[in-house]
Amino acid sequence: MGYEKMEEMAVSIRWQEQQVILLDQTQLPLKTVFTKVDRIEDMWDAIKRLVVRGAPAIGIAAAYGLYLGMRDSDADNFTDFLQELQAGSAYLASSRPTAVNLVWALERMESKVHDNRDKNIIELKEILLLEAQKIHAEDEVMCRQIGENGLTLLRDGMTLLTHCNAGGYATARYGTALAPIYLAQERGWKIKVFANETRPLLQGSRLTAHELMINGIDVTLITDNMAAHVMAMGRVDGVIVGCDRVAANGDVANKIGTYGLAVLAKEHGIPFFVAGPTSTIDLFTPRGDAIIIEERNAEEVTKGFGRLTAPAGVKVFNPAFDITPHQYITAIITEKGVLRPPFAGGLQKMINN
Amino acid sequence: MGYEKMEEMAVSIRWQEQQVILLDQTQLPLKTVFTKVDRIEDMWDAIKRLVVRGAPAIGIAAAYGLYLGMRDSDADNFTDFLQELQAGSAYLASSRPTAVNLVWALERMESKVHDNRDKNIIELKEILLLEAQKIHAEDEVMCRQIGENGLTLLRDGMTLLTHCNAGGYATARYGTALAPIYLAQERGWKIKVFANETRPLLQGSRLTAHELMINGIDVTLITDNMAAHVMAMGRVDGVIVGCDRVAANGDVANKIGTYGLAVLAKEHGIPFFVAGPTSTIDLFTPRGDAIIIEERNAEEVTKGFGRLTAPAGVKVFNPAFDITPHQYITAIITEKGVLRPPFAGGLQKMINN
Repeated sequence: MGYEKMEEMAVSIRWQEQQVILLDQTQLPLKTVFTKVDRIEDMWDAIKRLVVRGAPAIGIAAAYGLYLGMRDSDADNFTDFLQELQAGSAYLASSRPTAVNLVWALERMESKVHDNRDKNIIELKEILLLEAQKIHAEDEVMCRQIGENGLTLLRDGMTLLTHCNAGGYATARYGTALAPIYLAQERGWKIKVFANETRPLLQGSRLTAHELMINGIDVTLITDNMAAHVMAMGRVDGVIVGCDRVAANGDVANKIGTYGLAVLAKEHGIPFFVAGPTSTIDLFTPRGDAIIIEERNAEEVTKGFGRLTAPAGVKVFNPAFDITPHQYITAIITEKGVLRPPFAGGLQKMINN
Repeated sequence: MGYEKMEEMAVSIRWQEQQVILLDQTQLPLKTVFTKVDRIEDMWDAIKRLVVRGAPAIGIAAAYGLYLGMRDSDADNFTDFLQELQAGSAYLASSRPTAVNLVWALERMESKVHDNRDKNIIELKEILLLEAQKIHAEDEVMCRQIGENGLTLLRDGMTLLTHCNAGGYATARYGTALAPIYLAQERGWKIKVFANETRPLLQGSRLTAHELMINGIDVTLITDNMAAHVMAMGRVDGVIVGCDRVAANGDVANKIGTYGLAVLAKEHGIPFFVAGPTSTIDLFTPRGDAIIIEERNAEEVTKGFGRLTAPAGVKVFNPAFDITPHQYITAIITEKGVLRPPFAGGLQKMINN
């Protein structure tokens, strides 16, 4: 089939003509549809419905969303403006409770306003837009650095297994977990990838398999429950995943299924790598068990493919994330470097650098 | 919702008016449709397409299928009849290469003919039908015995996790892995069940969740990749699964995903039980790695829900089974009793009793 020459990889998020253009990731891989967002409420909805997803992309989207919410503010003094800003920020933060990048980006926007309290309202609005664009631009640079750092853990000819989508679609570009793979390819290395389909929402088959194919990387799709079998066959040299939040002790919240993979990797003596920007590290969360895990709608499980595939009314448990305790993690890769256990001190030091 | 009073659980296989009535399990849980089978070719197809599935049910279906193939035989001497029988048997055996019950049932049919070589062709045909009916009737008794034996490992109030469907739909009645749960219910015990949906074909959500709901058992559906998380939450007291083949050393071939569950159970200190009739034990297969693993169509993964959910042309690996090495198994439950490790000698002794 060869997707390489068929299409270019779409960009997940763009700022254009005073609005945000989101690649509607719920429609991939069948349709490449873009959605225009110019109101904070639509951004809340886009984040909630996973039109835009992936921790870094959510952070960028939320920053623009907060600007969109403030752009038409009638506030005529700093106090009122700040109050509106905080309300907008809290509103956007409620769209996905687990992703710390969301809060990180929103706090960065708020803090920028605080730092410029001497400016007038028109200037503050401009500052908010510039800060959102800066978060956006920095993300691409950061992902490339994550890729460079992650590359030191890889070798030519390796087969990696990944879960969910921590690729270009999840960020401004390159991705986090997939960034080292793209950089390896730029160097002419042959890296093969097993992509877990990632139930219930199939980000692995819909997004990861799609972006890797488009970029000409050798990818094989499996269902999540096949990972143990391919590991036992000796076909996996490493697991690499993204993260939604890293606690101070190195415990990682990521897409449901990550923890099971980490246990399986340990049992098979396979290294387990977690990649993400330092904005994902939350030193205020001491351990993974303090992280609130978002539970999503039962229909994602029973009707996730457009038709009912389970008995009507069946009880469903649908946590969106799980916690991988730090002892299962071989290394955490950020834009600032590669951390090895014990993570506790290292994470603190990395943040403060 | 309460399925209890809404419908009766359908029977997976019946012999009626000189034909086999199969519950079309590919259409559950949305439609309860029965398919009439009166030709060996249609039985091959029904087994291949999983209209009938589950090791014991496949054995019963194949036995009837072989009779259907011989019913209209023109053979006028034993040699010709036997030759046709062997060809029919080899043909049916090719429908699902991993399930040992299939071969077991077919060999039992052939052996019955051998034992009655002094009979005439009309009598031999009758003997084949009677033997198929006997295999069928014995399965129900056997499942109940598996249930009784499995019950000794359970206690009131327990929560079990199961994978795929090793329930009533997979057998004449009761099932294998689900039999102890049904018997526990008959005694008034409250057993809760987590059902893995079991990708790619969703036997867990389509069949297990359905039959447990209909029978009024508290079942919660999860995606396969959530099992590790519910174990880490302390919500699972035991895992119980069926099996498609047990090697002489106790290694078990079962639905893809079983092996990963066994690793997870071990890591969480949760007992891992395998239930199946002794006909599933194959002493001629020394170890699990000698078992051929059926690979199935890529579309089960990419288009399993009626529409394409992955990029067109993506490479897919779709093994239908995996091997759980014996060291992960707490006990093997058969109709003859409960085996604990080391399994090697015990399996031999159990077969010979």
